[in-house]
Amino acid sequence: MPAVVDHEARRRAVADVTADLIARAGMEAVTVREVAQAAGYSTAIVSHYFASKVELLFYTYRATVLRAHQRMEAALDTGGGSIRPYLAALLPLNEEQRRDWLVWFSFWTMAIADQTLSAEQQVRSRQITTRITALLLERGLSEDAARAGARRLLVTIYGMASQAFFDPDRWPPETQLSLLDADLAALGVS
Amino acid sequence: MPAVVDHEARRRAVADVTADLIARAGMEAVTVREVAQAAGYSTAIVSHYFASKVELLFYTYRATVLRAHQRMEAALDTGGGSIRPYLAALLPLNEEQRRDWLVWFSFWTMAIADQTLSAEQQVRSRQITTRITALLLERGLSEDAARAGARRLLVTIYGMASQAFFDPDRWPPETQLSLLDADLAALGVS
Repeated sequence: MPAVVDHEARRRAVADVTADLIARAGMEAVTVREVAQAAGYSTAIVSHYFASKVELLFYTYRATVLRAHQRMEAALDTGGGSIRPYLAALLPLNEEQRRDWLVWFSFWTMAIADQTLSAEQQVRSRQITTRITALLLERGLSEDAARAGARRLLVTIYGMASQAFFDPDRWPPETQLSLLDADLAALGVS
Repeated sequence: MPAVVDHEARRRAVADVTADLIARAGMEAVTVREVAQAAGYSTAIVSHYFASKVELLFYTYRATVLRAHQRMEAALDTGGGSIRPYLAALLPLNEEQRRDWLVWFSFWTMAIADQTLSAEQQVRSRQITTRITALLLERGLSEDAARAGARRLLVTIYGMASQAFFDPDRWPPETQLSLLDADLAALGVS
C-alpha cells in the first residue's frame, strides 16, 4: 500500500520553511532550491506544489496571516473575553510573532512591484481593522469610538512592530505591552 | 578648459534616481544599468561613483534620511517654533514624503541580511528619537515625559506610515494629521 501523503501539510511545511528563510536571510535568499533543501524535499516536489516562486511566496504570506489570526482568536477564547491577549498575540513579543512581522514587512516591499500582492495586503489589513472594530463594539463602544479605537490600536501595533523590526533591544515585551495597555485604558476596555 | 564636474551633485542625482526606482518598481528593479539609464549617465560613470550595488544603496539610504532631516529642520525654523510642522514633514503626506517611506521600508527588509545596513538604521532611528526628545524638553516637558512623548509620537508616525504604505486611500493627509494632533494635544504641546 502506498504511503498516504498529506499534500496540504506538505504545502504548509514548505511555506513554514520559506517564512523562516525570509526572516533569517531576507527575501532575496528565497529560491526553490534553497527552500527544498531546508524543507528536506527535492526541488521536484516543491515545484510540484508551487508552480512558481511567486506562487510559493503568495501562499507563504497567506499562511502566516492565517496562522496569526488563529493565534489571536485562540488567545481571545482563552483570555476570558479580554481583548488584550488577542492584540498581544499580534505583537512581536516572541520569536514566532517577530518572525511574522519580518515576513510581512518583506512582503510589503515586494508588493511595490506586485499588484496582486498589494491588493491582498490591503484586504488583510482591512479585515483585521473590521475585526477589532467589532470587538470594541461588543464591549460597548459607539460605532465612531470603535472605529477610531481600532485605528488607534493598529497604529500603535504597526508602529511598535516597525521600530522593533530593526531595534528589538529598545522594544522588549514589557515596553510593547505598556503602550498597548495605555491605548486600552484610554478606550476604557481591557 | 574642461568642464568642471560637481561629483557630489552627480552622486546625489544618481541616489535620487535610485530612490525613485525603488519606490516605483521595488528593490529588485535596482541594477547599475537601470539606474544609469534613468539618470542619463553611462554605466561606467555610475560605477565610477559607486563601487558596488551595495555602496549605491547605502548612499541612497543615507541621502534620503539626510534630506528628510533637512526638510524637518527647515519646517521647524519656518514654523514659528511649533513642533507640528517638523513632525508633519516626516509623515507620508505627499509624493516626496511617501517616496521616502517606500525607500526606507525597502531598506529595512534588505537589512535582514545586512548587518551594516541594520546598524545604520538603528543609529538613524535613535537619532530622531533623541532629537524629538530634545524638542519636547525645550517645550517644558520633564525628562521622563519627553522621552515617553518622543516614543509615542514615533510609534504613531511609523504606525501610520506602515499602514499608508499599502493602503494610502485610508490614510489621506487629514487623517494622518488628526492622529498626530491628538498625540500633541495629549502631550500639551503644539
